[in-house]
Amino acid sequence: MLDQGRPEPLQVKAIGSFHVGGEIRTLTGLPIRQRVSTPGGPAYAVDPNGELAVGQMYVQYVRLAAPRTAVPLLMWHGGGMTGANWETTPDGRPGWQWYFLRAGLDVFVSDAVERGRSSFAPYPQVYAEAPYYRTAREAWEKTFRFGPAGSYHEDPARRRAHPDCRFPLADFDVFMKQSVPRWDCNDALTQAAYDALVARVGDCFLLMHSQGGNFGLHAALSAPDKVKAVIAVEPSGAPDPDRHDPAVLRHVPHLFIWGDHLEGNEFWTKYRPGARRWYEALVAAGVPARWLELPEQGIRGNSHALMMDDNSDDIADMIMAWLTRMVPMFSKT
Amino acid sequence: MLDQGRPEPLQVKAIGSFHVGGEIRTLTGLPIRQRVSTPGGPAYAVDPNGELAVGQMYVQYVRLAAPRTAVPLLMWHGGGMTGANWETTPDGRPGWQWYFLRAGLDVFVSDAVERGRSSFAPYPQVYAEAPYYRTAREAWEKTFRFGPAGSYHEDPARRRAHPDCRFPLADFDVFMKQSVPRWDCNDALTQAAYDALVARVGDCFLLMHSQGGNFGLHAALSAPDKVKAVIAVEPSGAPDPDRHDPAVLRHVPHLFIWGDHLEGNEFWTKYRPGARRWYEALVAAGVPARWLELPEQGIRGNSHALMMDDNSDDIADMIMAWLTRMVPMFSKT
Repeated sequence: MLDQGRPEPLQVKAIGSFHVGGEIRTLTGLPIRQRVSTPGGPAYAVDPNGELAVGQMYVQYVRLAAPRTAVPLLMWHGGGMTGANWETTPDGRPGWQWYFLRAGLDVFVSDAVERGRSSFAPYPQVYAEAPYYRTAREAWEKTFRFGPAGSYHEDPARRRAHPDCRFPLADFDVFMKQSVPRWDCNDALTQAAYDALVARVGDCFLLMHSQGGNFGLHAALSAPDKVKAVIAVEPSGAPDPDRHDPAVLRHVPHLFIWGDHLEGNEFWTKYRPGARRWYEALVAAGVPARWLELPEQGIRGNSHALMMDDNSDDIADMIMAWLTRMVPMFSKT
Repeated sequence: MLDQGRPEPLQVKAIGSFHVGGEIRTLTGLPIRQRVSTPGGPAYAVDPNGELAVGQMYVQYVRLAAPRTAVPLLMWHGGGMTGANWETTPDGRPGWQWYFLRAGLDVFVSDAVERGRSSFAPYPQVYAEAPYYRTAREAWEKTFRFGPAGSYHEDPARRRAHPDCRFPLADFDVFMKQSVPRWDCNDALTQAAYDALVARVGDCFLLMHSQGGNFGLHAALSAPDKVKAVIAVEPSGAPDPDRHDPAVLRHVPHLFIWGDHLEGNEFWTKYRPGARRWYEALVAAGVPARWLELPEQGIRGNSHALMMDDNSDDIADMIMAWLTRMVPMFSKT
């Protein structure tokens, strides 16, 4: 029996996963290796030559018994992360996956190609280069903006954060454990897998973070009949309006959301103008697009990790309110 | 409203995740790299030196509103795989994660250290060697036993399988997409993370596959007060009875399950005797252990992927029947 006052259980119809995209590549000419595949086990000759799956993408879904709409929400994480960043926050609160399930949407969380359960391929045989590993300093000072340049220190007691930082800094180590290596040479494979996901799922809403933003904005361009709304949370890139016509998106609402402390940040000073340029092209083409800077709403201190900051549920509320206002299917229910 | 005849929805209290184990390592002396982190974006100098999280393990949980017991089932996958192998089968049937949730257990699915959402660390800076990538031939002929030695062919039409093979061979490519690279130099890190998981969760049942078997059998030895039952599905290794005393497990039921076509298989001829030796030591020490060879029950054709074979639900039924018979807490409900 449930306790009084507790939320009702989520009514779930299915939990499962699949892989989309990918292809078979054949490796040749590599030397045999001797391997011991379990502690204390015998040595065993392994031939690394042969066929491998490359470029596939893992997608996990949770389907509700009675969703508010048949259109699911696809959640695409950013660079150096996996779908885990939509789950529990570093300080243990329910994350946006749970939020949007409770809000009545079927949710599909994917791991980008080369990351998490999507696997990665050998380099230099398949990928052209070695991966990048995010350092604590890079996350703290640059992409995630927990503190200004020069504020990170190996001794937690000597780290300086923005005084109003909303990220749960006491659990910075938990955040670092969510990081995974990334490559910069796999954009075409990754875009192809995201496009394949939209083709497989059909009608969908896209919610992307950071590097996922560029892939999602492109996916909408390629399938404007299927993508019913686009929510780009601090996208680090966007389509080039000189090369893509935003007019095909005239019926696809777009929301761009930004946190705080972007001014003067080395990474974002380079990477934000592309997103702004695409937003302006969308508006000029008549696309219902909104550019939401949280500080302009009086909401200060958000980091790049909006889905983990202490007001993550408030931001999800804003997204859900925008979505239900902009998308006709919600007004029918 | 639900259709007549459909199963009732699963009543879910929480879905989330966390990382256990791991530590911070510092890289030094590596050259700066120039990186472009989004298609069309500007170049950006990246310093690979600094602190990284290493050795952590990702764990995703689904908690029921009213589980049959407060003791959850921890599902530990095998080598070159991730937790995805407990989810949907390659041919699209609900997998064992869903089965055991429907059977009334809270389920925790982890990705082993270095795999999936647990991330991996740089080599040779942190890991001593390069990873192994499973080839299609290796899976087909050796570890997973879909066909005998020499039966794999790059042309699907020319592949030969065991005539009674229960694996859904038409979806072999889907299976290959679930494969991830693995290392053989991280056993201590991996065992430490599994032990940390048991310490964090407390009372639990362990269900392990293949390489996960050895880690689970060791984890039970280290926490015989917390591990309430152990189910080892084709374990590829086991503790050495000359080095470990099985008597501490006297109150921990153990089930070993084996499929077909093990005789004459090169890999399993090397790797199965260690598990048998541990089973016999358990029995000699009075541990309630069972060694279940499915062919001896008249069930032929199972591959190494028992959780994906066409009778996967039947095997899960056998596991659940054994668990409820062997573990006192079920007879109390």
